Amino acid sequence: MIKVGIVGGSGYTGGELLRLLANHPEVKVTAVTSRKLAGKPVTVVHPHLKSIYSINFEALNSKEVAGRCDIVFTAVPHGTAMDWVPELLDAGARVIDLSSDYRLPTDVFEKTYGTRHRAPRDAVFGMTELHPEVAGAKLVGNPGCYPTGATLAVAPLAKAGLVDRVVYDSKSGISGAGVEPTETSHYPNMSQNIIPYKLTTHRHVPEIKQELGRLSPGIKVNFTPHVIPAVRGILTTAHVFAREGCEDIIQDRAKVAGIYADFYKNAPFVRMADGIPKLSSVRGSNFCDISFEPEKGSDRLVVISAIDNLVKGASGQAIQNMNLMAGLDERTGLWTAGLAP
Amino acid sequence: MIKVGIVGGSGYTGGELLRLLANHPEVKVTAVTSRKLAGKPVTVVHPHLKSIYSINFEALNSKEVAGRCDIVFTAVPHGTAMDWVPELLDAGARVIDLSSDYRLPTDVFEKTYGTRHRAPRDAVFGMTELHPEVAGAKLVGNPGCYPTGATLAVAPLAKAGLVDRVVYDSKSGISGAGVEPTETSHYPNMSQNIIPYKLTTHRHVPEIKQELGRLSPGIKVNFTPHVIPAVRGILTTAHVFAREGCEDIIQDRAKVAGIYADFYKNAPFVRMADGIPKLSSVRGSNFCDISFEPEKGSDRLVVISAIDNLVKGASGQAIQNMNLMAGLDERTGLWTAGLAP
Amino acid sequence: MIKVGIVGGSGYTGGELLRLLANHPEVKVTAVTSRKLAGKPVTVVHPHLKSIYSINFEALNSKEVAGRCDIVFTAVPHGTAMDWVPELLDAGARVIDLSSDYRLPTDVFEKTYGTRHRAPRDAVFGMTELHPEVAGAKLVGNPGCYPTGATLAVAPLAKAGLVDRVVYDSKSGISGAGVEPTETSHYPNMSQNIIPYKLTTHRHVPEIKQELGRLSPGIKVNFTPHVIPAVRGILTTAHVFAREGCEDIIQDRAKVAGIYADFYKNAPFVRMADGIPKLSSVRGSNFCDISFEPEKGSDRLVVISAIDNLVKGASGQAIQNMNLMAGLDERTGLWTAGLAP
Amino acid sequence: MIKVGIVGGSGYTGGELLRLLANHPEVKVTAVTSRKLAGKPVTVVHPHLKSIYSINFEALNSKEVAGRCDIVFTAVPHGTAMDWVPELLDAGARVIDLSSDYRLPTDVFEKTYGTRHRAPRDAVFGMTELHPEVAGAKLVGNPGCYPTGATLAVAPLAKAGLVDRVVYDSKSGISGAGVEPTETSHYPNMSQNIIPYKLTTHRHVPEIKQELGRLSPGIKVNFTPHVIPAVRGILTTAHVFAREGCEDIIQDRAKVAGIYADFYKNAPFVRMADGIPKLSSVRGSNFCDISFEPEKGSDRLVVISAIDNLVKGASGQAIQNMNLMAGLDERTGLWTAGLAP
Repeated sequence: MIKVGIVGGSGYTGGELLRLLANHPEVKVTAVTSRKLAGKPVTVVHPHLKSIYSINFEALNSKEVAGRCDIVFTAVPHGTAMDWVPELLDAGARVIDLSSDYRLPTDVFEKTYGTRHRAPRDAVFGMTELHPEVAGAKLVGNPGCYPTGATLAVAPLAKAGLVDRVVYDSKSGISGAGVEPTETSHYPNMSQNIIPYKLTTHRHVPEIKQELGRLSPGIKVNFTPHVIPAVRGILTTAHVFAREGCEDIIQDRAKVAGIYADFYKNAPFVRMADGIPKLSSVRGSNFCDISFEPEKGSDRLVVISAIDNLVKGASGQAIQNMNLMAGLDERTGLWTAGLAP
Repeated sequence: MIKVGIVGGSGYTGGELLRLLANHPEVKVTAVTSRKLAGKPVTVVHPHLKSIYSINFEALNSKEVAGRCDIVFTAVPHGTAMDWVPELLDAGARVIDLSSDYRLPTDVFEKTYGTRHRAPRDAVFGMTELHPEVAGAKLVGNPGCYPTGATLAVAPLAKAGLVDRVVYDSKSGISGAGVEPTETSHYPNMSQNIIPYKLTTHRHVPEIKQELGRLSPGIKVNFTPHVIPAVRGILTTAHVFAREGCEDIIQDRAKVAGIYADFYKNAPFVRMADGIPKLSSVRGSNFCDISFEPEKGSDRLVVISAIDNLVKGASGQAIQNMNLMAGLDERTGLWTAGLAP
Repeated sequence: MIKVGIVGGSGYTGGELLRLLANHPEVKVTAVTSRKLAGKPVTVVHPHLKSIYSINFEALNSKEVAGRCDIVFTAVPHGTAMDWVPELLDAGARVIDLSSDYRLPTDVFEKTYGTRHRAPRDAVFGMTELHPEVAGAKLVGNPGCYPTGATLAVAPLAKAGLVDRVVYDSKSGISGAGVEPTETSHYPNMSQNIIPYKLTTHRHVPEIKQELGRLSPGIKVNFTPHVIPAVRGILTTAHVFAREGCEDIIQDRAKVAGIYADFYKNAPFVRMADGIPKLSSVRGSNFCDISFEPEKGSDRLVVISAIDNLVKGASGQAIQNMNLMAGLDERTGLWTAGLAP
Repeated sequence: MIKVGIVGGSGYTGGELLRLLANHPEVKVTAVTSRKLAGKPVTVVHPHLKSIYSINFEALNSKEVAGRCDIVFTAVPHGTAMDWVPELLDAGARVIDLSSDYRLPTDVFEKTYGTRHRAPRDAVFGMTELHPEVAGAKLVGNPGCYPTGATLAVAPLAKAGLVDRVVYDSKSGISGAGVEPTETSHYPNMSQNIIPYKLTTHRHVPEIKQELGRLSPGIKVNFTPHVIPAVRGILTTAHVFAREGCEDIIQDRAKVAGIYADFYKNAPFVRMADGIPKLSSVRGSNFCDISFEPEKGSDRLVVISAIDNLVKGASGQAIQNMNLMAGLDERTGLWTAGLAP
């Protein structure tokens, strides 16, 4: 059994880790922390976990928690993880950080988040499909939700050198904004609406550029996110424009299909969908569903991907990383279908 | 032209007064107040009113506002209206209060809201269908949203002496909870859910008991409200149980239909629906749609009513009151269809 | 391993059986039938099952299917199951029927559904909390979705002899209406609405009367269903009225809590909720969450229950029955939390 | 008074014409046709119009209807309008066609819709902001819903010669798909989802290309539509890429704002929004709200537009055209705010 701790268990990603780990055959959750709720049962904020968990939140003592855990998930706000991750590492735990603190090189992080990084450490970008070296990592920076759907949608084409520019138009369920009520999450504002935001400046862009840029230096990336009236899910519409001379290849469905099949041949959680991917097909599950369609007589190929932002875009991917780190099949405890309808 | 003021114009009912009054041929809005937003255009919080209104919020000076207005709507929180209403009245304005401060006798108010009433005044309960004396009122207590749908659904049967007990099960859109984000209005909590609350203790119950009790002393009333994943609308399911000896009458569809037709023959905004009332049929409009069905071989008659909580349940009904007070046809400026679909 | 067949695998309950059984450690699905889709992979209509199942639909040959299966779930329309269930039984399979064909005595069935029952058989009503004799059954009539939430909410009080009358006001997600598009399920009609229907005549009422009547002869039951803008879930508001002389007991929270605790002490899937039950707490799971609140100074007690109509209200409950029939712990393969948020 | 007829009054755009015209001070609706519903009151399918209209549907006799009307709206399916429009014109009525039959040159129409045009006529493209010649038209081809939001968003930049390419990513409420239930409009499929469709081949693209191409020959246009879980509204995200040498201009917010202000100085229904346009601000109204944001250090400018697909995208725009044709202020009867919240 892997002994697992969750630092910051009261939010959506913490709750989702608990939900998913409850069905993991090789895991025992030995610590769940929350400053505000220390001493209270986790079911106070997660009533869906009643009868499943009897564990209480505790205050975080890094050394003590690390001593009880093989692997610790940190599910705390951006800019906060860096206060705890080094202590946990130094106390001997391996860490999967769900915040943005360990996804980018320090200089890019500081520029993007406008804050000094107080505790840089070596970390692996936790997208197993692109980074098998996760298996040996001490510290994994678990990818952002948008970058997960966006990168997986285009990585095969980028690696094949076919892409000049990608215009990402992403649509996320509002759970990505967290558990705290805001003006945007206020039902009368979100219902019957779709809200574009940070039209040109979302902080997840550098992650996408980093990953696609590794595969295809110089690739141009534009990104605009929206929230939609849905709780879970990110649907990404990637408008891919061919590099000059590659227009014919992106028009060839069989060739494109072959490129994806080859790239993802060892990636069980990436499924090429038979039609347009549906959010319901991935809801609550760790799958990323993808399809594509070339625009006839044009240099454009449209790629659609669908993930659950809280699972493949956060807690599920984190467990997938944990599985590899622990030498398990990456499907262990995660091989469940989407909740459709 | 009637010169109108709105005290408390930044919330949903204030915005709705502005939206509706923009199409009223006999009204000019001469004052809109908001403490927090004084000096700013009303479109700061009501972007849908852009190009329609160029008026700014102002701080409330009762005497000054009353001087510029024939009729003032007070759309401020419960317990606050009593601070302004007497001043406005004394300065010569007629007042339609959308809060709960002037709907109930002082003792009932104080018991229900657990607070002393600092400024009792004579007021008329502003449901024109039951209170034509609104026409001559100086002060109108505009009914609560739930009591509007609930009372109109059952008043004809109560007056006919047919009812022993009504069990109201009401379902409201979340806009009734106001413009401020709360845990309940947080999209992930409200979406795909229906939330019963104050199961046996909602503060609107005394209004219903007061109005039905006037028509049928001793009638028993139970009430449980729910919020549903909708912005606007209240659908009320009234489970009506016949008084002993009246079981046969409530089984007689023609007789019941006759009772409603007679009771509402001068009430243009009450429509007997041909099928089950739909929230979309009344959305944005001042109509109350009603239908009923007896349970065969039983003492139960189910009555359904549908209103828009912000219109017939608040601002539209307030304007209907204003029309009567100003000697206009009560339909003036309000005779618009629901926004369906 | 239990070899399992699903007759009628293309609808929502069939899909849900497949989704849930995929994580059942003691089950192998050996047959899934569909007349229309015979020969096609189940993922044609259930894309969320891609990579999880590679099985194809087949046409139903009762004898042949029964030969390959220990237990067969029939998930076909009402009035159709009776054509297949006897053949399957006679061929040696045990059957759990998700239609309404085997839930009621023949005469009640015929009166309720207005059709002759062509093949009556002895069956156990498959609500394990009330019918442990399911364990030995050859044929189980799996309860309707509304009766599940309604009966579990009130059974303990009924058994204690406290109830004169229950007025059920139930609210269901639209998935209960099935996979075929209808006017009601048309998004512009369902969205931002709540639709009462069959106000006094829903066919599930006899099941509720049968079960509560067994526990408390003469209990009065009224029932009105609604569909809400949600995909999954049934929230039942049970307005319980005390039998004369029992008003004080229903006012005593501790006593009522004790009655529920005692009644459900061996029912792992019934949870007494700490606050108002949420549909998200049971979404995708087999739990039934319950809470209650007495109305002060009244004869009314309000009980709320929440289930997922496709799980505890259909396929999950069916698997719970299967577990008992197979001698397994009833939680096997079903012990998962609701998908919240 | 303008005497108005509606050919095809049973669908959403027909119902919306009736809803809007009910508040038009210069219009009398003298004919509403429907083959299937001839003889029945319009409220049979439009219960929201009860008490507002008492007119019945009639079967269409072109000559007879044209004789009773000054202007006829044809709100029938694509490919059907061409059967009636010439007859109506020949009988002396002026016609505003809401189908796609008269928006494109015949050759483009035939290529786009894959059908022969049986009755080509001269028509004006009914977007008053770009085509003031509507005023004198006998026949107006009322624009498609997507082209309305898309064209208005970018026309000023196109006319200024700043644009190399626009990548449109549009999101529409499902009412655009019409009144008939389909698999897409089935609530369990549409709820909590966003569905891209016709990723590269939507039939509205030629309208956009025609209008932008008139203003800026050679402009490149890509378009992908989605339906969102909303009834009304189209939010268009236009990713505008600058023509070489124009990168600096699109970075200059003041210059871009000036270009829009100038282009729309006589267009009362186009509003430059102070923040991100909201669908609720335009819901039920004829406004088109627009905002923009340049991407720093890039060649991209993101433009957002919001309309109500049934109003500015269909029936409202048609009435706006009617107003101009009748010599009225184009705001007449349309100057109402969006239904927010």
